[in-house]
Amino acid sequence: MAPESIRWHEDHVVILDQTRLPREERYLEIRDPEAMFEAIQRLRVRGAPAIGVAAAYGLYLGVREHTGSVERLLARVEEVASYLAKSRPTAVNLFWALDRMKARARELAAQHPDAPEQFLSGLLQEARQIQEEDRQVCRQIGLHGLTLLRPGMRILTHCNTGALATAGIGTALAPIFLAHERGWPVEVYADETRPLLQGARLTAWELQRAGIPITLLCDGAAASLIARGRVDLVLVGADRVAANGDVANKVGTSAVALAAREYGVPFYVASPLSTIDLSLASGAEIPIEERDPREVTEPFGVPFAPEGVRVYNPAFDVTPHRFITGIITEKGIVHPPYGPALRALFA
Amino acid sequence: MAPESIRWHEDHVVILDQTRLPREERYLEIRDPEAMFEAIQRLRVRGAPAIGVAAAYGLYLGVREHTGSVERLLARVEEVASYLAKSRPTAVNLFWALDRMKARARELAAQHPDAPEQFLSGLLQEARQIQEEDRQVCRQIGLHGLTLLRPGMRILTHCNTGALATAGIGTALAPIFLAHERGWPVEVYADETRPLLQGARLTAWELQRAGIPITLLCDGAAASLIARGRVDLVLVGADRVAANGDVANKVGTSAVALAAREYGVPFYVASPLSTIDLSLASGAEIPIEERDPREVTEPFGVPFAPEGVRVYNPAFDVTPHRFITGIITEKGIVHPPYGPALRALFA
Repeated sequence: MAPESIRWHEDHVVILDQTRLPREERYLEIRDPEAMFEAIQRLRVRGAPAIGVAAAYGLYLGVREHTGSVERLLARVEEVASYLAKSRPTAVNLFWALDRMKARARELAAQHPDAPEQFLSGLLQEARQIQEEDRQVCRQIGLHGLTLLRPGMRILTHCNTGALATAGIGTALAPIFLAHERGWPVEVYADETRPLLQGARLTAWELQRAGIPITLLCDGAAASLIARGRVDLVLVGADRVAANGDVANKVGTSAVALAAREYGVPFYVASPLSTIDLSLASGAEIPIEERDPREVTEPFGVPFAPEGVRVYNPAFDVTPHRFITGIITEKGIVHPPYGPALRALFA
Repeated sequence: MAPESIRWHEDHVVILDQTRLPREERYLEIRDPEAMFEAIQRLRVRGAPAIGVAAAYGLYLGVREHTGSVERLLARVEEVASYLAKSRPTAVNLFWALDRMKARARELAAQHPDAPEQFLSGLLQEARQIQEEDRQVCRQIGLHGLTLLRPGMRILTHCNTGALATAGIGTALAPIFLAHERGWPVEVYADETRPLLQGARLTAWELQRAGIPITLLCDGAAASLIARGRVDLVLVGADRVAANGDVANKVGTSAVALAAREYGVPFYVASPLSTIDLSLASGAEIPIEERDPREVTEPFGVPFAPEGVRVYNPAFDVTPHRFITGIITEKGIVHPPYGPALRALFA
């Protein structure tokens, strides 16, 4: 059984606090949008698809706090959406989910102008629907990605793109889970993924838990592992895909892509359609979150660097589309040229 | 004043324990070869040139413990050299310094066959000479490297190649120290250099101490920094250079080289002649040290990864010569084709 990153329980959201993993499997009850904002910002819930689901629930939680007419609730939808949109800037799923919830809210308001309770229950239903769809999308990505795998393959990944990052079996890890389910031997190499060590803490934990052979390495060791011919395939996720196929993903991804291209190893990005942002022409337009310097100087509260040192701490980087062999979506795998291929997915 | 990584004091060696930096500036007295072996293996003293100096002193310490004829002392030289040669495998300066001490010991034995004290004092003199030469070599590398710098340049480096890594002002950092001395504004970006964080702990400390602007980043962020046009020059050191110009250096170096080449940023390696090993045809023959998995899973005793996870922890990687713009030595900067250029340095 895959771990559940986020779920609706009775009248609140339960999230697995990923900042505590792998030492502690602690669940948090989230009952208001402020708690959800904090959980997203602090990466208690993270991974582009899971952030989308979290934002959708967060929006509902913020609206149901209020009473009054549907009109007032609809105004509240806008307020809470604006608030939650500030929690993190890069993963487009956040904005995608909030936009979808807002659109649904307008529909519901038109359908039930005088029934606040129906309006609210419809909103909750939409959030649950987003979660359910993500579960199905993960499975579809897994099935499409599985066509790239062969028994015995050695797959390198960066950051965490498994069940913890989604509401299902993951994005880039989904094909690996399905291969394992089929009894195929596969080996995974996981970059530790500084600064927040999602590879060391989350991917290693998830794969170990599933019984999939996993070897951890420092981010800087990936290039030489690839150069030595020890990787058959690279699979990574995405936080935002631009219209030309440039991919924003966890910082360090572009270095892996460069090494993969240099040594002829296929480099695939797994991305649901909800992560593709056709409104941005290229990766240069994707806002890149810069985070607290202390993530670099004092990982998890342990100070390593001298005090007062300046830090460059982007959470993401952009991998140019020319380094990407293909993008695995729930509707199939697309190849260059990405412009028309991505547009066709939405046609 | 640059910190002194290693020095001879009265009758013993004093090293700055680099595992304690930057929190604590602690000096250790080393009086026997076992303590020197431990200091090298645990990276209390590290950096290819400094390891060479440490090994030379360690050899002397192991020989002076014994009494007897010059013949017996000469046999002891071989024993201690074999012992110290096992402390670390990649940096060739270790073997270079031990070979040089052995050759000098044979000369001394021939000159003073019946004078053990003169034999011993000659051996100590040779170790001090190796240290003094390294100091001069650093300065020469600095002066040659300085011809590549311009005021206002932004320089990226990986690992630590400063005073702490040598007996002088460093190798790859030497040109930067000299530029700063001349009042040129320079900015340094330092990769933190997982697993042992020599960039975060040592380079940041050394440059901050010297008043040189330094910005720290995770190793995975270097490629995007280069891609964004924020780096004018990459300067790194070397642990061993093969006859064809392939360079073994701290793990992660080759990923930086790939990014530099992709985005047209010059990538230079600073290496004294004592780090060049013409006996190896290519980097494929350089032995790469693999170190304790706990350096990855529990940096400095803090456990991040799940228990029992497998780890790939090479301390070095090989940057193919085709990614290297030039190699800065004490005899000048050499360019491709490196085979004849490196041979000419030794002619």
